[in-house]
Amino acid sequence: MAEMVNVAVDAMGGDNAPGEIVKGAVEAVNEDRRVKVFLVGREPVIREELKKYTYPAEQLEIVHAEEVIDTGEPPVMAIRRKKDSSIVKAMYMVKEGQCDALVSAGSTGAVLVGGQVIVGRIKGVERPPLAPIIPNAEGVSLLLDCGANVDARPSQLLQFAKMGSVYMESVLGVKNPRVGLVNIGVEEEKGNALTRETYPLLQSCPEINFIGNVEARDIPAGVADVLVCEAFAGNIVLKMLEGVSDVLIKKIKGGMMSSLRSKIGALLVKPALKKTLKGFSTEEYGGAPLLGLNGLVVKTHGSSKAIEIRHSILQCIAFKEQNINEKIKEQIVLED
Amino acid sequence: MAEMVNVAVDAMGGDNAPGEIVKGAVEAVNEDRRVKVFLVGREPVIREELKKYTYPAEQLEIVHAEEVIDTGEPPVMAIRRKKDSSIVKAMYMVKEGQCDALVSAGSTGAVLVGGQVIVGRIKGVERPPLAPIIPNAEGVSLLLDCGANVDARPSQLLQFAKMGSVYMESVLGVKNPRVGLVNIGVEEEKGNALTRETYPLLQSCPEINFIGNVEARDIPAGVADVLVCEAFAGNIVLKMLEGVSDVLIKKIKGGMMSSLRSKIGALLVKPALKKTLKGFSTEEYGGAPLLGLNGLVVKTHGSSKAIEIRHSILQCIAFKEQNINEKIKEQIVLED
Repeated sequence: MAEMVNVAVDAMGGDNAPGEIVKGAVEAVNEDRRVKVFLVGREPVIREELKKYTYPAEQLEIVHAEEVIDTGEPPVMAIRRKKDSSIVKAMYMVKEGQCDALVSAGSTGAVLVGGQVIVGRIKGVERPPLAPIIPNAEGVSLLLDCGANVDARPSQLLQFAKMGSVYMESVLGVKNPRVGLVNIGVEEEKGNALTRETYPLLQSCPEINFIGNVEARDIPAGVADVLVCEAFAGNIVLKMLEGVSDVLIKKIKGGMMSSLRSKIGALLVKPALKKTLKGFSTEEYGGAPLLGLNGLVVKTHGSSKAIEIRHSILQCIAFKEQNINEKIKEQIVLED
Repeated sequence: MAEMVNVAVDAMGGDNAPGEIVKGAVEAVNEDRRVKVFLVGREPVIREELKKYTYPAEQLEIVHAEEVIDTGEPPVMAIRRKKDSSIVKAMYMVKEGQCDALVSAGSTGAVLVGGQVIVGRIKGVERPPLAPIIPNAEGVSLLLDCGANVDARPSQLLQFAKMGSVYMESVLGVKNPRVGLVNIGVEEEKGNALTRETYPLLQSCPEINFIGNVEARDIPAGVADVLVCEAFAGNIVLKMLEGVSDVLIKKIKGGMMSSLRSKIGALLVKPALKKTLKGFSTEEYGGAPLLGLNGLVVKTHGSSKAIEIRHSILQCIAFKEQNINEKIKEQIVLED
C-alpha cells in the first residue's frame, strides 16, 4: 500500500470555520483512504463539530492551536507573533515533514507570508506564485501569479510557466499543457516592458508548450491551460471572472423573476441551469496552490464551503503521489 | 436654433462596413435633428447603401475617400501613407474644424495614432486615454485608459480621473461621479508602484470625487462611475468583462437546450432574458471616446452594428453642447 498523504487543515480559517472546514475534512477522508487530515485549531470546538459525523478515526486527528489569525491583521506581524495560531502550527507541521501539505481558507496574506517564511522556498525558486484554478468554457486553466507580490521579473514569469506546466500535467492530468502569456494583443511586440521581455524567454524554453500571447478576451474561452502573468494582472483576471459571473447570474435570475411567464419558465430551466453554472464556479475546483515551496500550501476562498475544502484536500494526494516538488526542482535546476 | 453638430463617420471601418455603418448613420439623423453626418469612404458603395433608406438629405453627406486602412496594417505607417483613406480624411475634417467629432469602427491603432498625430492633443494633456463605457449591475462606468500606450505615469492617471469625471458628468449626466483607482486591494498601501504613487494625487485633487481603491471584483457591481488605471490593466478589465459575459451566456443558452423540459422553459424566459442581457452588453452604449484631443474621436467595436454607430453619433451631440473640451482645458490648466 502506498504511503498516506498527510494534510494539515486550518480548521479556524475562513468565514465558515470551523463548521464547513470540519465537514469538508470529514468528506475527504470518507472519500479517499489515502489521505490523513490533521485538523489544526481549538480542540473543543473541533471536537464538537466532529460529533456530527462518522468517519474512519485513524484518518482524522485534532491538533490543538489556541490562537486564530484574523484576515484584517497585518500578515508579517501575525505570523511572527501568533506562534500558537492554527496557520502557524499547520505551517510548521509541513516544514518539519509531519505533513505533506496544508489547506487554509484563512488570511491570504498570512498564508502567503507563512508559506515563504516558515515552509520555505525550493532552492532556486525566485518567487512562489499563488496559482488558482479557474473555470473556462472547455474545462479549467491555472492562472499564475495571483499572489501579493506585484512587479515580477521576466525570469520569474518563466519559472511560473514551468511550475504551472508541471502542476497542470501531473495534478490535473492535462498532457503537454498550453502555456499562454497574458497580454493586451497577440503579436510578439505587444504589451509592456515585462511581457515583451518575457515572450522570448518562454518561446525559447524547451520544457514548456508556449502558444504565445493570450488576450484577456480569450481566457474564458479556454485557449490556454497555463496562464502566466504578474500578480497585479493576475488578480484583475481572477477578480473580474468572479465579479462578472456573480453580477450576470444575479441579473439573469432577476430577469427570470420579472414576469409570470418567465417565472414559470425559470422553474423549468432551473435544474439544467444549476448544473451549467456549477461548472463555471471558481469554488468547484478546490483552492489555489502556492507553488515552489518545500511542501504544498493550498489557499482556498475565504468563503469556502465544505465542497471546496474537500476538493483542496483531495488535490494534495496527486501532488504527493506525482512528486510535483521533485519535478519542479528538476525544472528549476535545469536553468543553472 | 442651436448650431448643428457635425460628425464625420468612417463608412469603411469595421467588420460590417459599409452596410451597418451607413444604417447607423441613417438611424441617427432620423432620430435627432441636431446632427449632420458626413459619411467618409468610397462614394459608389455608400450611395448604393443609402438607396435603401429615407432620411433628411440635408443631414447626410458623402465625402469620397478612395483608400481603406485595414486592421492588420501597422498604424503609424498607414496613417502616414494612406492620405486618401477614410480614417485620415475624417481626422482632417475634425482637425480643420469642418467636423466636431469622428466615429470609426476601423483599426484601433490607426484611430489612436491618427487622433494624436492629426487631430492633436489639447495643450497640457500628457496622454489621451481611450475611455470605453462599460455596463455594470447599476448602470455604466467609464474605464480609462484602455488605449495602446501602457506604463502610464501617476500624473497621467490624475488627468484621466479629471477628464473622465468631466465626461461622465456632462455627457452621461452622472452628478459628482465617483472616481475609483483600479487596484488589487482597497487599502491605500496596496498595489504596485504606480497605484501607490497615484493614490495620494487623486486623494488631494479637489476637482474629483475620489472614493479610493476599487478591486476588480467590485467593478461589475458598479461601485464607481469613473475607473482609473493604466492601459494594460484597463485592457484586461474590458476584455475579461466581454469574454466572461460571452462564455457565460453561451453556457446558459447551452444549458437551457439540454433537455425537453429546459427547452420549454427557455421559450418562456427568453423575452425577459433578452431584455436583461441587452442591458449588460458593451455594444449598447456607443463607442469609446479618445479624450483630451482637439475634437472628439470615438472608437466603436470592430464588430459594430448599426445600433452602436447610432449611439456613438448621438453621443457627440452632448459632447459638443456641453463644451466638454472647454471643461477639460479648464481642468488641465488648473494643474499649472
